[in-house]
Amino acid sequence: MSKRKIRLGAFLPGAGHHAAAWRHPDAQADGGINIGHYKRIAQTAERGLFDTIFLADGLAAGFGAGAESGKQAYGGSFEPVTLFSALSVVTERIGFVATASTTYEDPFILARKFASLDHISAGRAGWNVVTTGSSAAAGNFGLTSHPVHADRYDRAREFVDVVKGLWDSWEDDAFTRDKASGQFFDPAKRHELGHVGKHFSVRGPLNVPRPPQGHPVVVQAGSSETGKEFAAETAEVIFTAQQTLEEAQAFYRDVKGRLAKYGRRPEQLLIMPGVFPVIGRTEEEAQEKYERLQSLILPEVGIALLSGLSGGVDLSGYDVDGPVPELPETENMKSRQALMLDIARKHNFTIRQLYLWVAGARGHWTIVGSVEQIADQLQAWFENEAADGFNVMPPWLPGGLDDFVELLVPELQRRGLFRTAYEGHTLRENLGLARPGNRFVQTPSREAVAA
Amino acid sequence: MSKRKIRLGAFLPGAGHHAAAWRHPDAQADGGINIGHYKRIAQTAERGLFDTIFLADGLAAGFGAGAESGKQAYGGSFEPVTLFSALSVVTERIGFVATASTTYEDPFILARKFASLDHISAGRAGWNVVTTGSSAAAGNFGLTSHPVHADRYDRAREFVDVVKGLWDSWEDDAFTRDKASGQFFDPAKRHELGHVGKHFSVRGPLNVPRPPQGHPVVVQAGSSETGKEFAAETAEVIFTAQQTLEEAQAFYRDVKGRLAKYGRRPEQLLIMPGVFPVIGRTEEEAQEKYERLQSLILPEVGIALLSGLSGGVDLSGYDVDGPVPELPETENMKSRQALMLDIARKHNFTIRQLYLWVAGARGHWTIVGSVEQIADQLQAWFENEAADGFNVMPPWLPGGLDDFVELLVPELQRRGLFRTAYEGHTLRENLGLARPGNRFVQTPSREAVAA
Repeated sequence: MSKRKIRLGAFLPGAGHHAAAWRHPDAQADGGINIGHYKRIAQTAERGLFDTIFLADGLAAGFGAGAESGKQAYGGSFEPVTLFSALSVVTERIGFVATASTTYEDPFILARKFASLDHISAGRAGWNVVTTGSSAAAGNFGLTSHPVHADRYDRAREFVDVVKGLWDSWEDDAFTRDKASGQFFDPAKRHELGHVGKHFSVRGPLNVPRPPQGHPVVVQAGSSETGKEFAAETAEVIFTAQQTLEEAQAFYRDVKGRLAKYGRRPEQLLIMPGVFPVIGRTEEEAQEKYERLQSLILPEVGIALLSGLSGGVDLSGYDVDGPVPELPETENMKSRQALMLDIARKHNFTIRQLYLWVAGARGHWTIVGSVEQIADQLQAWFENEAADGFNVMPPWLPGGLDDFVELLVPELQRRGLFRTAYEGHTLRENLGLARPGNRFVQTPSREAVAA
Repeated sequence: MSKRKIRLGAFLPGAGHHAAAWRHPDAQADGGINIGHYKRIAQTAERGLFDTIFLADGLAAGFGAGAESGKQAYGGSFEPVTLFSALSVVTERIGFVATASTTYEDPFILARKFASLDHISAGRAGWNVVTTGSSAAAGNFGLTSHPVHADRYDRAREFVDVVKGLWDSWEDDAFTRDKASGQFFDPAKRHELGHVGKHFSVRGPLNVPRPPQGHPVVVQAGSSETGKEFAAETAEVIFTAQQTLEEAQAFYRDVKGRLAKYGRRPEQLLIMPGVFPVIGRTEEEAQEKYERLQSLILPEVGIALLSGLSGGVDLSGYDVDGPVPELPETENMKSRQALMLDIARKHNFTIRQLYLWVAGARGHWTIVGSVEQIADQLQAWFENEAADGFNVMPPWLPGGLDDFVELLVPELQRRGLFRTAYEGHTLRENLGLARPGNRFVQTPSREAVAA
């Protein structure tokens, strides 16, 4: 077995992750809906040998204080599967992890679009399963209120099971397409799901053959208690927000420790904390880059951002230079809210200090430093059971990704921590994840071994 | 104003339209899920200056007699928007009309994916609005039965209105993205839909800026009384199945005559009958090509096909060489069932003769002939108020499309009936359809004039 390598995801929202990214002189301000920009950054990420490109997603636009003033980069982004299908044609090896909601989407239609993407990309699709944190989505789907956390996860568990079942509708070798006899498929290898459950009744089969990867890689990002348990049961990759080595180690141990009861081994679930790197050739250069971005945040935008991250609580009535108030717990984004408050208490932050602290990475791990300093930290997390890899969040785009690919990747390669060429052709192969067997087949039709 | 030109759609199911297309020696048997094949035929259609590529779609797989035996080309096709997004990257001018169901999809999610496709393709998206004819879909969406025809159209009307409203969420010039001031958009140009109706409650705004075309071109294919009225009210293109010049003229007059009551002019709705052309350099060569395809149809497949077209009625119990029986009217596919029976009575067909008759074009207009003969017929329909253009249904793929592009297109150009270069950049511009104004803007932000 070859030496364990760092896995890298490129988390690429239009203009970048910093709250004021779009105002950066070199940022693509309309990046979220600019296909030329996305082609360029996808190719940059592939040049950097990233395992995958990732996009978060929401199902509502333009709410909160920043929306009223028009000073936040709201207003839209492409539907992720539609975007990734286009990008799959201009790339060859990099994977695509698209976010889709189990609360508001339909399992048959979702299963079909991800299966389509997996075929079109020749096995490079992943699904980030979310239950949707923002209550604003409810009004776009005929609901008067957003379902509560526990109900969303209850539905999510059944949803994922149905979708995986639909992906297994056809055995890998079901389609013979024998022109001479006229036998197109083997009816014995076509399976109706016949699911009847609490939330869904879905007959099947799916109208797409089994995806090249067996099924797309399943990703999860929730870090509440329920979220961790759900991930341990079903996910193959976790994207998570951790601030310190110790916290990351605790999370890593916690989640990996939950796998055994589902009959899974630790290496079947990769843990990839988000990292927001501001990279300089020197520490000073990095600090200058960071301060420059920070100076671009308008106070009303900073406050709106905190409101969003604290589950919709409006902080605009409080003194921006006063302490962060006690907040009522909300049902919507439990884990992020707790994280925000924790940061504020620990550093004794004012509202302004808190929004400046979280503006960049929105609760993710921020490293401002030289190439060596950043590589040292990534190495420390990777080698000390805090991370199997990282979800890289460029401060602005395209420049922040260029920096990572041109400066960090060569350094990680020099240290033997990162690949120098893609190992496989599918996302699963590159991540070292086994191809799942088909639930309708007693002996898996291909050996479930890692690449 | 330049001379009126024929509009051409390329209707491109994987291996082609003939029931036995996939068995043709030169056909791509796995065409429905082969992205390389789709890239090739999309580029061929663009070389032929087609206005658009079209795909029908269903939300169920593998039912009916042919499914049990595994002898029909069932089992899947890509989700159309996902496929077209990939194809938009390898083409520059051709449009993409994707089918999506108002009965089983959600308006917010549908509006977003089509808006995304319109942005990614730089204004080349169209939506074929269907209510889903096959009852098999119901079981995949938690319903015990398929909604009846009238209810489906009632929901469809509201659905289309909601989707168009969501596409208007942001005015064309809402996004200023002024880096200096930090003003990303003008809040006065962001509109909540606030729709509360019988079937849907949708707040909005959509999380994608207004599509480049204002909204994607709206296409309809129903030809029942309800379907025609719906098309007259909302559609910009109709794909229809007509057998003879006289029938096509009657349909054309009928639909165009319904427009005035909705305040629309005849040129705002293009009527494009389907045509299934078997093209030879001589009539004999064409006939040979046709007979060769017909000989590939297995009887059980032909009967299954008739069952499908007659709304699910099982004809397998009847004598294949006996007369076509009286059939109970079904709720599912009224217009196609009537058409089937009409054809059978007129020609006094047996079941076998009927399935051979419809196997190719599934009720569409079949022309087997030389290049000149086919061009003559298309010209006659186009010049005699039977058609504004045609939805071309190649018998097999890729060869049937190659024939049309290499043989028919030059002949139509010689006659001055078809373009020699694309006139515009968007699908609307090429079809000569005006860009719609925004419902939230009193004076349209751009003049609504045809290209």
